[in-house]
Amino acid sequence: MLSSRTRCSIGLDFGTESGRAVVVDLSTGKILGTAAHPYADGVIDERLPGTNTQLGSDWALQNPDDYLQVLRHAIPEALRQAGITPDQVVGLGVDFTACTILPTLADGTPLCSLPDWRSNPHAWVKLWKHHAAQPDADRITALAAERAEPWLARYGGKISSEWLHSKTLQLLRESPEVFAAAERIVEAGDWVVWQLTGREVRNACAAGYKGLWERGNGYPSEAFLTALDSRLADLNRTRLAAPVVPPGAFVGTLSDAGAALSGLLPGTAVAAATIDAHAAVPGIGVTQPGQMAMILGTSACQMLLSETESLVAGISGVVADGILPGFFGYESGQAGVGDLFEWLVQQATPPRYFKQAEQQGKNIYQVLEQEAAAQKPGEHGLIALDWWNGNRSVLTDATLSGLLVGATLSTRAPDIYRALIEATAFGARVIIEAYQAQGVAVQELVACGGLAERNALLMQTYADVTGKPIRQGGTGLASALGAAMFGAVAAGAGSGGYSTIAEAAKRMVNFQSVTFHPIPEHQATYSRLYSEYLRLHNYFGKGENTVMKRLREWKM
Amino acid sequence: MLSSRTRCSIGLDFGTESGRAVVVDLSTGKILGTAAHPYADGVIDERLPGTNTQLGSDWALQNPDDYLQVLRHAIPEALRQAGITPDQVVGLGVDFTACTILPTLADGTPLCSLPDWRSNPHAWVKLWKHHAAQPDADRITALAAERAEPWLARYGGKISSEWLHSKTLQLLRESPEVFAAAERIVEAGDWVVWQLTGREVRNACAAGYKGLWERGNGYPSEAFLTALDSRLADLNRTRLAAPVVPPGAFVGTLSDAGAALSGLLPGTAVAAATIDAHAAVPGIGVTQPGQMAMILGTSACQMLLSETESLVAGISGVVADGILPGFFGYESGQAGVGDLFEWLVQQATPPRYFKQAEQQGKNIYQVLEQEAAAQKPGEHGLIALDWWNGNRSVLTDATLSGLLVGATLSTRAPDIYRALIEATAFGARVIIEAYQAQGVAVQELVACGGLAERNALLMQTYADVTGKPIRQGGTGLASALGAAMFGAVAAGAGSGGYSTIAEAAKRMVNFQSVTFHPIPEHQATYSRLYSEYLRLHNYFGKGENTVMKRLREWKM
Repeated sequence: MLSSRTRCSIGLDFGTESGRAVVVDLSTGKILGTAAHPYADGVIDERLPGTNTQLGSDWALQNPDDYLQVLRHAIPEALRQAGITPDQVVGLGVDFTACTILPTLADGTPLCSLPDWRSNPHAWVKLWKHHAAQPDADRITALAAERAEPWLARYGGKISSEWLHSKTLQLLRESPEVFAAAERIVEAGDWVVWQLTGREVRNACAAGYKGLWERGNGYPSEAFLTALDSRLADLNRTRLAAPVVPPGAFVGTLSDAGAALSGLLPGTAVAAATIDAHAAVPGIGVTQPGQMAMILGTSACQMLLSETESLVAGISGVVADGILPGFFGYESGQAGVGDLFEWLVQQATPPRYFKQAEQQGKNIYQVLEQEAAAQKPGEHGLIALDWWNGNRSVLTDATLSGLLVGATLSTRAPDIYRALIEATAFGARVIIEAYQAQGVAVQELVACGGLAERNALLMQTYADVTGKPIRQGGTGLASALGAAMFGAVAAGAGSGGYSTIAEAAKRMVNFQSVTFHPIPEHQATYSRLYSEYLRLHNYFGKGENTVMKRLREWKM
Repeated sequence: MLSSRTRCSIGLDFGTESGRAVVVDLSTGKILGTAAHPYADGVIDERLPGTNTQLGSDWALQNPDDYLQVLRHAIPEALRQAGITPDQVVGLGVDFTACTILPTLADGTPLCSLPDWRSNPHAWVKLWKHHAAQPDADRITALAAERAEPWLARYGGKISSEWLHSKTLQLLRESPEVFAAAERIVEAGDWVVWQLTGREVRNACAAGYKGLWERGNGYPSEAFLTALDSRLADLNRTRLAAPVVPPGAFVGTLSDAGAALSGLLPGTAVAAATIDAHAAVPGIGVTQPGQMAMILGTSACQMLLSETESLVAGISGVVADGILPGFFGYESGQAGVGDLFEWLVQQATPPRYFKQAEQQGKNIYQVLEQEAAAQKPGEHGLIALDWWNGNRSVLTDATLSGLLVGATLSTRAPDIYRALIEATAFGARVIIEAYQAQGVAVQELVACGGLAERNALLMQTYADVTGKPIRQGGTGLASALGAAMFGAVAAGAGSGGYSTIAEAAKRMVNFQSVTFHPIPEHQATYSRLYSEYLRLHNYFGKGENTVMKRLREWKM
């Protein structure tokens, strides 16, 4: 039985296919209830719902009404599961995929909900993985380089096709009429907060990492925008004009409309939105400088807090207040981690390991891991460069490709599996050393995501290769927990919440976690192997032998 | 019906597991009958037959009586199949694995057939793949280098553990009593000819390629042998004292004992033995300078005739009269060819290709070939270094290992298969260019062995990569046919045979063969890829980055 005095916060986690509500006990961090609601239209990448309008191959849209359905269904269901009544909920936080943007009227009405625009694909939400704005991204990068825009270096010298200005430029170029009708262009996370509170703000996390915004300097200048396209001149004063606030900042309380949508009480505190990956940072207890959050999935993302700003080559962004208020938030990534292991399983693992898995009642990854874990470091005699999906860290070069050296007639799939794990660990060490070389400290690693939870060999290898302790940072609900923590801080200590995110973390991040410590003997071997990795990394990645680039060109 | 005037020659081909007799029509080259007889004791690598005497892990012995059983059973059976009577057989040739040697008395009696020595493993035949003499090989190489022996360069600077002097030194070192009792140390091929004719000779092919013998200079000097071990001082005058004759030379006619063994008539001409691989050279019609015979199996062997002697780095031997009388015979090799494909199939091909093979009623190689053949050169974006089994050509470095560069998440097993085929072709081109750089011409390739017969993609790739036409050189019986041709020359034109091997080839090498011609468009692409291969080959193989050597050391 829960005490009737239990106070809760709700985290709303909007993913690619569904949204989830999580009810968290404020005093213990215990997850009392959780409910997901799938988006009825899902990822719209073939044709607009209810029409024959075909979409291009790189398109990915969503329907904003699906987000409202999450509020209507997932929140009440999570409360019911938790046995919590709305009066026990003191705050609410939102995390969302990004850059996921939609054009709206000045009152927040999505253009795609209006009959005039409903059949125009550009009126809908462009999901983060909408990749049709590559030419626009290229133009922005080129123009910024030409004009020596100071913000370009903060993004590693390259603007992504996924980001706000790329998507906006595509919108303008392909549908000037929708652009003209769009009184606002807004991140979906901020739009949800707007629907709940009636207040329009932009969160510094999405604005900073995906919208080229910087504290103090704002968005790219009117001069730059005009040079890009004269019709963009007033972008900052119109479509993006709302105040930018740190993620998790108190935005307001639930409006009557927001209360009706969610089934919660008017007056409940609502925090500014944040990006889903970034919400996981406090959700796994990373609230201090020197702690690096590593989200390990098909690709990897590292997030790091620091009190100082440095330009580190190959990071995808440094944003003041971008992750937590008061810190510079650094974000970097590895283009392929779990993807590489999946490649090995799908493309280069022979039948007998699948048979072994079946006989032992295990999955194929468990079999490869158990075979690979029985080896000592270096025993397989292999080194790989982890560039099967290019490199998006210090080299920032998508034309790079994977390399395996040391193969013999005795090389087996578990050997390659272990070599790939080690290669991704070496790749992480390159990033950590790049931070450290610029004076941004990294003392401890906290990993979350599927690989961190399931793969002990990978965790131990990361500890051994980096020479740093690495902690398992919790469950798949880390982002939702982070959002709920922001909700608790928005409510404030006076309402049963917390005054800072660090305070919230002390009480609310409480799961049993395992820390893997470096094994000195392994460290010594891996230091030798890392030297070899680095030499190959530099030989193939820094221009001495650009064979990978040529091989890719000749594929055409 | 065969004409009653049909004249035949018999080729005897002694392999690793069995011996085969082939009856060949002298005027057409048609194979009229063929019969194989397995060695009862096979490869003896665990314990001596009929004893509990355990052998070391690198040991491989045989029982010479098994060779006699081939004469007793395979020859009559092949004649029966052919419908040929012994009076129609004018000559007999023998090819044998090498270096496969045995210790005997002065009359040819194998020591292992004597009760005194039967239980001593050193008294038995040491098969070519007996690898327990590696320390002995290392000592010989080191001493030859120290003394600057002129013959060392002819073998690429390295003496193999498989060769006569390595095996002899091991015999002396481990069993001086068997060494003392051994009045002769003789190649098994020469021993079989001795049993058939009563005449003891040594063939220049085995003596030259495996016994450090050179026309004009003979075996390594007494001074060298004494420095190696004083007990070897008289080796050349005693155990190896028989005359050395070119392979295929007329040795004598069948003795009464030889006739009784074989069921053939006394007086039938018998040719000097030759090594099995080398017998295939005339057997596929290579009898002229500029034609390179390529034997493509698990590994590859190239053999080339020339009128000039050059020292070419990385060839495993150049021997005057070594392949055919009157020419310098060059031999070089690639350590892994079919072995690499087998590795891919066993270790890195996922289940769905095996399913596809089953559904299409094909074998797995056919499926990989059909998928790979559908691509254009360069389309897979990969380059491999074909060193899974080390390098035994121009780099002569067993510590090298395989490399694959260019892998992406889309890389599939047929892509790697094609890249491995190309890598072995690039490896062959390196060898051809090494010959050409020393003035030894290569104009045309003639390939035999399983890969040449079955793999059209491989053959076309070799043509495209080398820029030379490559002809399929016949069947798996090429060695036996070559031996039969030597038998025909030993018999001579007066007895219905031939006066030269070139004459014999004109009439007896007659199979329908396919020639693959270089496709100019492919050649251009492959020239670019070959430049990349060569650059990686030199970077990893010639000391600039010796990572492969270190990876191998760290495996221990």
